[in-house]
Amino acid sequence: MGRVRITLSECRTICRKALQKAGLNEGAIVAITENITAAERDGCRSHGLFRLPGYCLALQRGKASADAVPQVTSVAPSCVLADARGGFSTPATLAGHPLLVEKARATGVAVLLIRNAFHFAALWQDVEPLAAKHGLVAMAFLNSKAFVAHWPGGRRPLYGTNPMAFACPRKTADGSSAGAEPFVFDQACATMARGDITLAAMDGRPIPADAAIDANGQPTIDAALALKGAQLPMAGHKGTSLALMVELLAASFTGDAFAFEAAGEDSSTPTQHGELILAIDPERCSAGGGREAFLNRVEALLQMVEAETQAAEASGRSMRLPSQRRFTTRKKAEEGFEIDEALLRKCQALGESEGDTARL
Amino acid sequence: MGRVRITLSECRTICRKALQKAGLNEGAIVAITENITAAERDGCRSHGLFRLPGYCLALQRGKASADAVPQVTSVAPSCVLADARGGFSTPATLAGHPLLVEKARATGVAVLLIRNAFHFAALWQDVEPLAAKHGLVAMAFLNSKAFVAHWPGGRRPLYGTNPMAFACPRKTADGSSAGAEPFVFDQACATMARGDITLAAMDGRPIPADAAIDANGQPTIDAALALKGAQLPMAGHKGTSLALMVELLAASFTGDAFAFEAAGEDSSTPTQHGELILAIDPERCSAGGGREAFLNRVEALLQMVEAETQAAEASGRSMRLPSQRRFTTRKKAEEGFEIDEALLRKCQALGESEGDTARL
Repeated sequence: MGRVRITLSECRTICRKALQKAGLNEGAIVAITENITAAERDGCRSHGLFRLPGYCLALQRGKASADAVPQVTSVAPSCVLADARGGFSTPATLAGHPLLVEKARATGVAVLLIRNAFHFAALWQDVEPLAAKHGLVAMAFLNSKAFVAHWPGGRRPLYGTNPMAFACPRKTADGSSAGAEPFVFDQACATMARGDITLAAMDGRPIPADAAIDANGQPTIDAALALKGAQLPMAGHKGTSLALMVELLAASFTGDAFAFEAAGEDSSTPTQHGELILAIDPERCSAGGGREAFLNRVEALLQMVEAETQAAEASGRSMRLPSQRRFTTRKKAEEGFEIDEALLRKCQALGESEGDTARL
Repeated sequence: MGRVRITLSECRTICRKALQKAGLNEGAIVAITENITAAERDGCRSHGLFRLPGYCLALQRGKASADAVPQVTSVAPSCVLADARGGFSTPATLAGHPLLVEKARATGVAVLLIRNAFHFAALWQDVEPLAAKHGLVAMAFLNSKAFVAHWPGGRRPLYGTNPMAFACPRKTADGSSAGAEPFVFDQACATMARGDITLAAMDGRPIPADAAIDANGQPTIDAALALKGAQLPMAGHKGTSLALMVELLAASFTGDAFAFEAAGEDSSTPTQHGELILAIDPERCSAGGGREAFLNRVEALLQMVEAETQAAEASGRSMRLPSQRRFTTRKKAEEGFEIDEALLRKCQALGESEGDTARL
């Protein structure tokens, strides 16, 4: 089978039907449907419909709770706790956002802790709206199951790939930040994405020398041996430090599992971990001039980088700002997006009754 | 000249005399003397007496203010501003710490902005006491003058080496965190330290292939060409993202200079930039169980890493926790430390009157 084109609206319908059939509650259906559709809209395939079967499987197996409604609590003037109560993380994150925003505006900075959640969504979606809709600077830290060795010296998976995400508001030409695309990035502490190593193993392609070790702790370019060994953190000991920091931030405040404690989790379905989101309000947290002065300074830097990016492209060099490709893809998303036909059929089948499925 | 051994007490005396002679105010003398001495105590030579001539030169030239007394202001319930008023950063940071701690304890999380400061100190000292003395989790972000290119695609220095530091409290065997060595790291976003490239150029040694580009934007292993080109961020585009994040966090809230705006600064003396420090109180910012539950979780992870470290060392592999070497060095510091004799003479001469100097 080849690739076919579908619209965002069709993507929403496919998600909704599949999650409904799996028995998920309405609030969570809305949250996850929008999350998957936004990932496809931005060309972030790894967190789009590709994830839908895993969400449904986690519900079928009773791993994630289908009827969990997140509970949001104010635990301190600048701290919010969102308890997902064994459900998926996205509904809990969205449920926690309003109080996080309120607290950041009231005190200057606030923390959102997300606990008891099964994570399967791209982390940038947890911070982008805080910058784009609310004008806040936001950071998120999430651990995962153990894939990455302590380096140098480690021989087995100890840390998660442990993504961190960052979002900073920008202003539009009219001076407001509403509607402006924020500066956003979302990156793991490992050299290479787990999925890319899996694909390389399937294709028999080599991987870079600094991406993984085999089961004996020796660096390897053989992707199949890498999957039986451990991934390496980016930039050696510096990536190890960051991976450790993310473990501590994401899981120590919430009491959720560290990567090494979640080693037995099946990563074809969402895995249970902690998450911490920080939000800083440039209006309150300011050396003077508030939001306006802040946004002007942000433009002073990012417009300089953008000018250099344009100059680089003019001379045939590839240079871009993080998330630039996502925003460019987003602009074209109304035309729909391409998807692997086998994956599409699989996702459609998830939402159909047995009679429907028989027709495929 | 060779190397000689001096005590921490002698180090303090040398610093104090030199800074007094340069006309610095008493509060700043105490802060910088302790900072330099703590760096030597921990074997952090790059930020020890090696920095003393630069501090004095900045005062002689009138670059940094000798009589600036930092001004600390509460700008929001969770935000403190420490204005160094053109003085050095260390007195301003220490002046801001008490209100930062008070606010973090009151609200769960707080931010300290440091502006108008000349930075020359190691960043870990800005966060370690927050964890070690106050039981807070702390992060610090500091930009520097432009040395690092946007990668891939950049051809000239655009970002600072931009260190970030992290500190997390730990507990001692008796269950308290007072006196326990925290988990701390302090690392730049560049592949290689600027000073190490300078040393390689002096010795004619090659540098790693991913550390720098020459003035034409081509990767180079020639350290001399690297100094005329630009350093590279660690881990390619991921290090670029982190360097950008540090610029935005450190300089946008404070209104201080971005790296590219400080390109003309002479880095043999302290340079003027912004800094942001975050402090989170595990007692308030908790999903349940407060500080005690938090410290137990931290130990669950770090004792696991330490056990693996010991196993690695037993089989001849080098593996350690960040800052482990510093704490080991610290335990031996009462015996004094070794210093290059020429540097020692230079530092001693800074504090002596003309008559004294003539005797050397």
